[in-house]
Amino acid sequence: MPGEVLRAAGRVERIGEGPGGALMVVEAPVGRCASKGCDCVDHAQALEQVLAAVYAHCQDPSIELIGHRVVHGGALFDGPTVVDDTVIDRMESLLEMAPLHMPPALAVLRACRERMPHARQVVCFDTSFHRSMPPLAHRYAVPRRWYTDHGVRRYGFHGLSHQYVVHRAAEMLDRPSAQLKLISAHLGNGASITAFDRGRVLDTSMGFTPLEGLIMGTRCGPLDPAVLLHIQRRTGMNLAAMIHLLNTQSGLQAVSGLGRDLRAILAARAEGDPDATLAVEMYVHTLRKYIGAYHFALDGAQALIFTGGIGENSAAVRALVLEGWAHLGLELDGVANAAMTAGQAGFITRSTSPIKALVIPTDEERLIARQAHAATAGGQLRGRP
Amino acid sequence: MPGEVLRAAGRVERIGEGPGGALMVVEAPVGRCASKGCDCVDHAQALEQVLAAVYAHCQDPSIELIGHRVVHGGALFDGPTVVDDTVIDRMESLLEMAPLHMPPALAVLRACRERMPHARQVVCFDTSFHRSMPPLAHRYAVPRRWYTDHGVRRYGFHGLSHQYVVHRAAEMLDRPSAQLKLISAHLGNGASITAFDRGRVLDTSMGFTPLEGLIMGTRCGPLDPAVLLHIQRRTGMNLAAMIHLLNTQSGLQAVSGLGRDLRAILAARAEGDPDATLAVEMYVHTLRKYIGAYHFALDGAQALIFTGGIGENSAAVRALVLEGWAHLGLELDGVANAAMTAGQAGFITRSTSPIKALVIPTDEERLIARQAHAATAGGQLRGRP
Repeated sequence: MPGEVLRAAGRVERIGEGPGGALMVVEAPVGRCASKGCDCVDHAQALEQVLAAVYAHCQDPSIELIGHRVVHGGALFDGPTVVDDTVIDRMESLLEMAPLHMPPALAVLRACRERMPHARQVVCFDTSFHRSMPPLAHRYAVPRRWYTDHGVRRYGFHGLSHQYVVHRAAEMLDRPSAQLKLISAHLGNGASITAFDRGRVLDTSMGFTPLEGLIMGTRCGPLDPAVLLHIQRRTGMNLAAMIHLLNTQSGLQAVSGLGRDLRAILAARAEGDPDATLAVEMYVHTLRKYIGAYHFALDGAQALIFTGGIGENSAAVRALVLEGWAHLGLELDGVANAAMTAGQAGFITRSTSPIKALVIPTDEERLIARQAHAATAGGQLRGRP
Repeated sequence: MPGEVLRAAGRVERIGEGPGGALMVVEAPVGRCASKGCDCVDHAQALEQVLAAVYAHCQDPSIELIGHRVVHGGALFDGPTVVDDTVIDRMESLLEMAPLHMPPALAVLRACRERMPHARQVVCFDTSFHRSMPPLAHRYAVPRRWYTDHGVRRYGFHGLSHQYVVHRAAEMLDRPSAQLKLISAHLGNGASITAFDRGRVLDTSMGFTPLEGLIMGTRCGPLDPAVLLHIQRRTGMNLAAMIHLLNTQSGLQAVSGLGRDLRAILAARAEGDPDATLAVEMYVHTLRKYIGAYHFALDGAQALIFTGGIGENSAAVRALVLEGWAHLGLELDGVANAAMTAGQAGFITRSTSPIKALVIPTDEERLIARQAHAATAGGQLRGRP
């Protein structure tokens, strides 16, 4: 930093799945990709594996600054924050907001502080970008105590991804983001869409948790909450079990009966499978509605961004989403769209299109590195001697 | 019929609230309006009161045909249906779909058959119009058994109102509805919005029950279902109690703290009340998103219809909803909008506006009369000697 040279990249998956059950994947330096089983029963051991890999790949492995992605900053964190004991206490108070994600994030943070006490740690939150959302979008029209006493509001997620692609779109459109109205669709296993209004988030589809909004691989998308009462009366299932099903056994997987991978579902649709066809239709219909909703809520967006695994790579999905909108101001360029895959960034609308559509590969790690660097003025605590 | 001359109109309210607790309101013949307390402990007694009022107002009170509005036809009723014992059995099988509304509807139906065995009875359902909705909109992406075994799908409501105003809009636009793409917003104490696509419903905002969709007087509008699990863990409240709160203690009432009447909330907003202001902003934002969503899902609607108590009478709400959209193709005519209240029908967009907006007073009773008349070919069972 600030040259932004990538020295190494990788990840550890399946932590805690027994000896040799975890997987170390090294993706960079560019052109190199290797994966191998590794032993780590917890996140502290995973950190040791990561450090060993870093030392093996880098000639000067002194680590001064560590950026952490954290899914939930609640109402406490408005942006990247340099970690101290107080910050950890505040993060612990958010455990119940994301009981699956916060404990491992805190475990890695603690292991990093212990293992590299000389390094600065900065936490970057998936919710922070959405903290600029006005009350008309972040409030739910529920009993007021649910908001005042229990923290029920729209938080929004994928904020690092939306923030990164909005920044890139401003560069590609050659206008400052403070003058732009944009819609960014992050479509991966999880999926969310954000309306960005001249420097701040106007609205986003994920809500109190990442369950709300678009239909996803295993998440249900829009639902009448009264359905839950009907199912409970018919089956006796408790609420926790139903919410678990809505997170893990719904969405594309439930409708298609073919698992959560949209590529496999698109292939089955191409062969005429009716459930796969319906799953794709529902996915696309929900997405089209969100795009129209945000376009009108913004009084007109200048551009629509696709990112995430599906958004960056599936020209077929992008074509299904955008078709039929030429007379509404969005003229798809079929050739450009078909060509825009595998990490490329560019426009997929005709040059005459009043509303532009862009594909922008997201890069949350790059944004985390930038935010960590900026928050510490290059490893030094900003504002401290 | 078929001349559609209104002979008398009225209603009985607060049935079963003790001696003198019910209220008989007579609204027509035109120009007459009277209300008085009446004694009726159940719907059979209410029917006697209605008949007494009809006999008092009409010179030739022979009743040959009775049309009933029924809120839920489930997956069983695609349109108006002449009542026989089988139909009543099928309606009884839908009790659990609308436990508050179906029992009184059946009680009135039974009382009418007993009291007037010579008359034909026709049931008209609020869900029937939406039966044309395609699977991509009526299915939820929930575990498949919820659909196949438990009937969980989007049914949609206010169908008689949406059907009536779509028909009127086609007349006013001088084009057959089979060529029109329309968005109809029924805004009253309950509120729903429907996308109509050349002869059939493409989508509608109310879902499995009338809870889903727009923010209403006491109903919550869009919500992350996972909120319910969080509230249950924090308060111990059971699911039935939470759904009851979302139906009766949420929406405009919860946000404003001023009750469910939008007129009072708009007045408080005009005086600078911040909670009233937020309630109006949330109501309008949600409605604007649905309009944009359906406009894009339809690949462009020709016209947008406002109906229902708020839609027909609140020029202020209509202006808030439509402002800022001139460059998206909807040019509000402020003068026409301000003038269009109290039962008037007409356009509220400029003559140059590519997308039209109309105000159309709904008339569900008229449509029920028409449907009952058509279903029986004027009191005679169609297709029978």
